[in-house]
Amino acid sequence: MRLSRYFLPILKETPKEAEIVSHRLMLRAGMIRQQAAGIYSFLPLGKRVLDKVCDIVREEQNRSGAIELLMPTIQSADLWRESGRYEDYGKEMLRIEDRHGRDLLFGPTNEEMVTDIFRSSVRSYKDLPLNLYHLQWKFRDEVRPRFGVMRSREFLMKDAYSFDLDFESARASYDRMFVAYLRTFERCGLKAIPMRADTGPIGGDLSHEFIILAATGESEVFCHRDYLGLPVPGADVDFSDPTALRAIVDTWTTPYAATDEMHETAVWDALPEDERLAARGIEVGHIFHFGTKYSAPMNAVVTGPDGKDVPVHMGSYGIGPSRLLAAIIEASHDENGIIWPKSVAPFDVGLINMKPGDADCDRVCDELYAQLEAAGVEVLYDDQETRAGAKFATMDLIGLPLQLIVGPRGAKSGEAEIKDRATGERETLPIAAVLDRVLA
Amino acid sequence: MRLSRYFLPILKETPKEAEIVSHRLMLRAGMIRQQAAGIYSFLPLGKRVLDKVCDIVREEQNRSGAIELLMPTIQSADLWRESGRYEDYGKEMLRIEDRHGRDLLFGPTNEEMVTDIFRSSVRSYKDLPLNLYHLQWKFRDEVRPRFGVMRSREFLMKDAYSFDLDFESARASYDRMFVAYLRTFERCGLKAIPMRADTGPIGGDLSHEFIILAATGESEVFCHRDYLGLPVPGADVDFSDPTALRAIVDTWTTPYAATDEMHETAVWDALPEDERLAARGIEVGHIFHFGTKYSAPMNAVVTGPDGKDVPVHMGSYGIGPSRLLAAIIEASHDENGIIWPKSVAPFDVGLINMKPGDADCDRVCDELYAQLEAAGVEVLYDDQETRAGAKFATMDLIGLPLQLIVGPRGAKSGEAEIKDRATGERETLPIAAVLDRVLA
Repeated sequence: MRLSRYFLPILKETPKEAEIVSHRLMLRAGMIRQQAAGIYSFLPLGKRVLDKVCDIVREEQNRSGAIELLMPTIQSADLWRESGRYEDYGKEMLRIEDRHGRDLLFGPTNEEMVTDIFRSSVRSYKDLPLNLYHLQWKFRDEVRPRFGVMRSREFLMKDAYSFDLDFESARASYDRMFVAYLRTFERCGLKAIPMRADTGPIGGDLSHEFIILAATGESEVFCHRDYLGLPVPGADVDFSDPTALRAIVDTWTTPYAATDEMHETAVWDALPEDERLAARGIEVGHIFHFGTKYSAPMNAVVTGPDGKDVPVHMGSYGIGPSRLLAAIIEASHDENGIIWPKSVAPFDVGLINMKPGDADCDRVCDELYAQLEAAGVEVLYDDQETRAGAKFATMDLIGLPLQLIVGPRGAKSGEAEIKDRATGERETLPIAAVLDRVLA
Repeated sequence: MRLSRYFLPILKETPKEAEIVSHRLMLRAGMIRQQAAGIYSFLPLGKRVLDKVCDIVREEQNRSGAIELLMPTIQSADLWRESGRYEDYGKEMLRIEDRHGRDLLFGPTNEEMVTDIFRSSVRSYKDLPLNLYHLQWKFRDEVRPRFGVMRSREFLMKDAYSFDLDFESARASYDRMFVAYLRTFERCGLKAIPMRADTGPIGGDLSHEFIILAATGESEVFCHRDYLGLPVPGADVDFSDPTALRAIVDTWTTPYAATDEMHETAVWDALPEDERLAARGIEVGHIFHFGTKYSAPMNAVVTGPDGKDVPVHMGSYGIGPSRLLAAIIEASHDENGIIWPKSVAPFDVGLINMKPGDADCDRVCDELYAQLEAAGVEVLYDDQETRAGAKFATMDLIGLPLQLIVGPRGAKSGEAEIKDRATGERETLPIAAVLDRVLA
């Protein structure tokens, strides 16, 4: 993409309303724009990162056997009256009345609707296990939305819902999702630690939050240092082997780990001091087993092997990709801007033409741009006539993993400079060697 | 995907509430489920087709130079007060009040919001032309929603918005989108004919609807037979050549074509009878040039080459992918079900194991499934123990382009049967030849 044809509204000044670094950097890098309190547009650069995060989430959901569908944003209040949550949910639910006076709401979550889909078509235990997920915009009318997309009112959520005949198989579904989450966050470049959690308004008796460590995190967390070295399952993990999955979950839940809310001082104090890691964390995922909390009142039953109808055992599993963008930035930035992990970077390479209009610079840049794009490398090509300082500052701010700098002298002598955004290392190399270096 | 692990809730009976064939077939094929009046879930099969249609729409928008972003569903009423449309829009607008009593709305379209994004960051004519688009759910509170996703209240829309310095360049932007639309619909397997249109509540002075011909279409249309033979521009069309694009638009707007609303009987009657084509049509896209209708009241100005501020000239361009699914079915089905064009089919091949449990059948099917998937072919593998008639009926209903049928006798002798869904032709061929035949 040529910058001259792109829409990248960089802000020169630090926006005053932004209290946390990810919010400041997303505004400055032209990734988002606030449209109303807690409601954001994702501008082109932000949309690209959101898509990459969603692709990773989707791939790992599919790998674990979950099936994608898409439920609507607007729901009928009657459905929520069946579960009893219509009154319980309180003011965070955005309630709407249509032109015929019917009560609707903007979905804050989808347990009721997916249970309705399930009960309308599944009859037998033979059709289980089943895990249905979607990626859809949600709305929670927070009293005081803040921190940009970290705590917005309209936000994107991947929510999955599992259906099983009994607790044992529901527990296996929970384990599958647990492992899928470990992989998802690692692929997003994050160190995520599962911590036992309260179940809150979703309900249920088994729940983990996935917390990433970030110096600027929202809350205090306490965990064993062992977590820093635990291996994350590879792409070859066998999701059809419940025993293997349970072993992974055990490994990841045995060392001490707790959020502030669930912290047990006595257990913590008993740990050797050099094994304790007290840090700041950000919640990026939350999984729940809640058994028959929705299936029983909503009559979502299947016929079991013994011919009797039983309500299905359910769980739900949430990741907020829009929030995840902010969390990744909190975990990966420096004083100059964002440092994107390669897997979610909006472009792989920023190609900087130091002197547009110079015949050598233009020729070399055009050739490199064509060559890289042909090799499947996503390039943002700064072909604009701005001063060198502004070009470098913008590239550092938007945080593409590699910068490729072509100046008139280098272009003439057949050389370009490559800069690694994360380390700051620069290297001059022959233009003919650039592609191999980028693909390395 | 193995059918035994998929979620495909086929309906055996024809739903009574469905008045048109696409609605009936989408319900029967387990593609959609109604959640409230005019509000639908896209079940897994429907979601796959929706994704394919969106991918085509996106590719052609990008090819034409439009840039993708993502605006939220919920908008502030204040923005619509600026353009004067908050009162004008009437009861179709879903109006919402949040917990603090602020007026919000579920966006029925995004002219105001995108104009706000534009004015907040673009200052100079040098940053033009600009075309920003998104794919986002919209809501229009129709009095009487009907016909399934063909006229639903919550629906997906691709809406693009162009910004130009003057009419001439705005006209070039209009032409780019016009050509992108011709390509988009052809890639979806549709014959779309642009027809001059009223501009309605969007406003403006230049507008075309893209109408596809379908025997079960919603409205009567009148056009010259020449349209049936006009060439659609290829993937190599040069979107940077306004003269070439104008020539294409001229070719596609010169023969007579009119919806019932815009029909001119005198012109029509003057055509030789054998050149007249009176048919049924379905609107699948609508493009508008409306100049400064929003930029003037909302003060979206740029500094021109002469140093003076002028309001930008705008256009908007809509396609409804969720509606498009239904339109494709209206245009392509028979008495047994849907006939998907290859480009948007939810899977490429339906693999039918006639006798799961039979060692030869299972082995051959497993091998074919693995081989086809490895070659990038998307396969829905019916590995379920149901009777032959039900298997065939389901495959015909869901309309995958090819069916691959493996029975015990064929499996033993190394043969499979392949059926073309559109023509009904069947062919028996050696198993070793299946992959080449599928890829042909």
